[in-house]
Amino acid sequence: MSIQSLIPTYICDIAPYQGGKPISEVAREHHLEESSIVKLASNENPLGMSPKAREVILKSIDQIYRYPDGNAFRLKNAVSLKFNLHPESLIFGNGSNDILELASRTFLKVGDEVIFSQHAFAVYSLVTQAMGAIGVKVPAKDFAHDLAKMFAAISPKTKMIFIANPNNPTGTLISKEELKTFLTKVPSHIIVVLDEAYDEYLEIENKSESFSWLSQFSNLIISRSFSKAYGLAGLRVGFGVSDPEIIQFMNRVRQPFNVNSLAQDAAVAALMDEAFVSESKILNNNGKKQLESAFQRLKLSFIPTFGNFISFKVDKAPQVYEALLKAGIIVRPVANYEMPDYLRVSIGLKEENERFIQALEAII
Amino acid sequence: MSIQSLIPTYICDIAPYQGGKPISEVAREHHLEESSIVKLASNENPLGMSPKAREVILKSIDQIYRYPDGNAFRLKNAVSLKFNLHPESLIFGNGSNDILELASRTFLKVGDEVIFSQHAFAVYSLVTQAMGAIGVKVPAKDFAHDLAKMFAAISPKTKMIFIANPNNPTGTLISKEELKTFLTKVPSHIIVVLDEAYDEYLEIENKSESFSWLSQFSNLIISRSFSKAYGLAGLRVGFGVSDPEIIQFMNRVRQPFNVNSLAQDAAVAALMDEAFVSESKILNNNGKKQLESAFQRLKLSFIPTFGNFISFKVDKAPQVYEALLKAGIIVRPVANYEMPDYLRVSIGLKEENERFIQALEAII
Repeated sequence: MSIQSLIPTYICDIAPYQGGKPISEVAREHHLEESSIVKLASNENPLGMSPKAREVILKSIDQIYRYPDGNAFRLKNAVSLKFNLHPESLIFGNGSNDILELASRTFLKVGDEVIFSQHAFAVYSLVTQAMGAIGVKVPAKDFAHDLAKMFAAISPKTKMIFIANPNNPTGTLISKEELKTFLTKVPSHIIVVLDEAYDEYLEIENKSESFSWLSQFSNLIISRSFSKAYGLAGLRVGFGVSDPEIIQFMNRVRQPFNVNSLAQDAAVAALMDEAFVSESKILNNNGKKQLESAFQRLKLSFIPTFGNFISFKVDKAPQVYEALLKAGIIVRPVANYEMPDYLRVSIGLKEENERFIQALEAII
Repeated sequence: MSIQSLIPTYICDIAPYQGGKPISEVAREHHLEESSIVKLASNENPLGMSPKAREVILKSIDQIYRYPDGNAFRLKNAVSLKFNLHPESLIFGNGSNDILELASRTFLKVGDEVIFSQHAFAVYSLVTQAMGAIGVKVPAKDFAHDLAKMFAAISPKTKMIFIANPNNPTGTLISKEELKTFLTKVPSHIIVVLDEAYDEYLEIENKSESFSWLSQFSNLIISRSFSKAYGLAGLRVGFGVSDPEIIQFMNRVRQPFNVNSLAQDAAVAALMDEAFVSESKILNNNGKKQLESAFQRLKLSFIPTFGNFISFKVDKAPQVYEALLKAGIIVRPVANYEMPDYLRVSIGLKEENERFIQALEAII
């Protein structure tokens, strides 16, 4: 009997996630020095992490033979205080990816339908398929979520809707008014997962107000990440916010020790270091201008972004991607996001952006 | 519409995992100084982690704003070399808990049956139930796995069998011969997950040879942990070994960045530091003798252990547990393992064991 015959077809059919290539892998494959490589492929914070998070890690390091606190007591209190949320409305994950997966594992059954936008984050489709649920991909409008079409896609089988705001890899943003109107229309038996991994990069007037909507929408799950502006991608930590009843069910499928102890401690410190997040945002705004003017000068069209990355259009994108790799610049192909003519570049330090621009100019 | 009505019954019925109480929680609840508390509740390595792992973490710390290598390239190579295993037969997890869950998520469907022993690790039941599969708990024989009865429990619906060797919380061991005979009899369409989290504590003559059985049993998945003898519980890392075809399917449900980068780097160093693992084992053997003679002196019966913990029988176990907590000693109640008259104590440093013995003696 073959192994494949023992595994549900929907598992066998999953296409594995394609992440940004790690620096070490590019160095091996292209015989480059790791230190010479510029990675602008995974929307990481080019400033690194908050120095306060670093200090805390050094203090906590000698306790890592102990299991983490499975209830994330201190981190839960810190998030609760910062955002004025009840501790029981919070759940922590091994990155916000874990929150997206916990939502799917709590609610989805084989045959349920799950709605998400074309060009939306690949993990929505993965966690849907892993449960044997059916992903319903709704065509985008100018690369952005088309909420009217997403609403029209609701069927009696719809169990969940994923929305990324801002969206990755397009960088598009849904306005608060439009989003709230959508939530008001979605029937309350359909869970809406709102992924706000890039919220910290928004200007004040655009920042999410979704936490204040929780009392109105008991079917809303919001996810947040420490991997972007907070600079802790390597440590894996994110959180979910929802109705305490949803949270307690999600906690039942959560691995007891899903968030490592250094991540918990570092996240508390990162959360408090508002100066670092501000600095990261200013750097990002400057880098955005730098890249946008380069694209304009090179007559390359790009999608105006609300995140820390820009998707730009280029002839022969796969070849340009490979040529950039050879020049020691890692960006991200987005053909698997149905954007075969685009590449996504993360906004880096000024000199990293400059190296990318020069390499790109030499190639095209 | 209630939230509960939206969630499959088998999810709603999960009873959350009860871990060992963290020191910080006991300190808060009992108004004790954290430094005065002795935690012998989670089978952690009382020596801490390998100093070489510590060094590596300090070197890697400034890279944690980068996502981890989702393929765990270096760790995979290190494990492959150390145990002479093909890299494609390896998968890494956020602790070995993640490996157990990935096995269940890859193979189990609603209604499948999963066999495990009474008094076996609680996570087997949790990951089974989270998939809507049915746990078939087989009565133990003198607290140990009764493989004859487990074989007899196989039905047409059986999809998976979990075996812990040594078993937690009983510390019992199945001999290699008995285990291999069992594997030979189990039909190849039933996946056997062999959890060897405590293998490093075994004497040479008892150590697992299961890696050499993989070529014979394509339905075998072995899991190992870095949380016990390797002292990295707080960082979360473990691995699975199986047929490359099984591994590639398990990789499809694995979160792309499930193992954080410090865990990957520290695990490589810990794996190489055989002297530290040896030292940990000697300390454990000495502590075992120390606790066993104390139990004998106090006329308390205990289950002879092959792990780094001992389950002992005591009148009014819940009250003794609470009294120990008040004295600043954390052990583990095992009533949820159908052992209401027992408590489990992890083997600690000599002076920690001594404090536990003195406190226990004063209480009973």
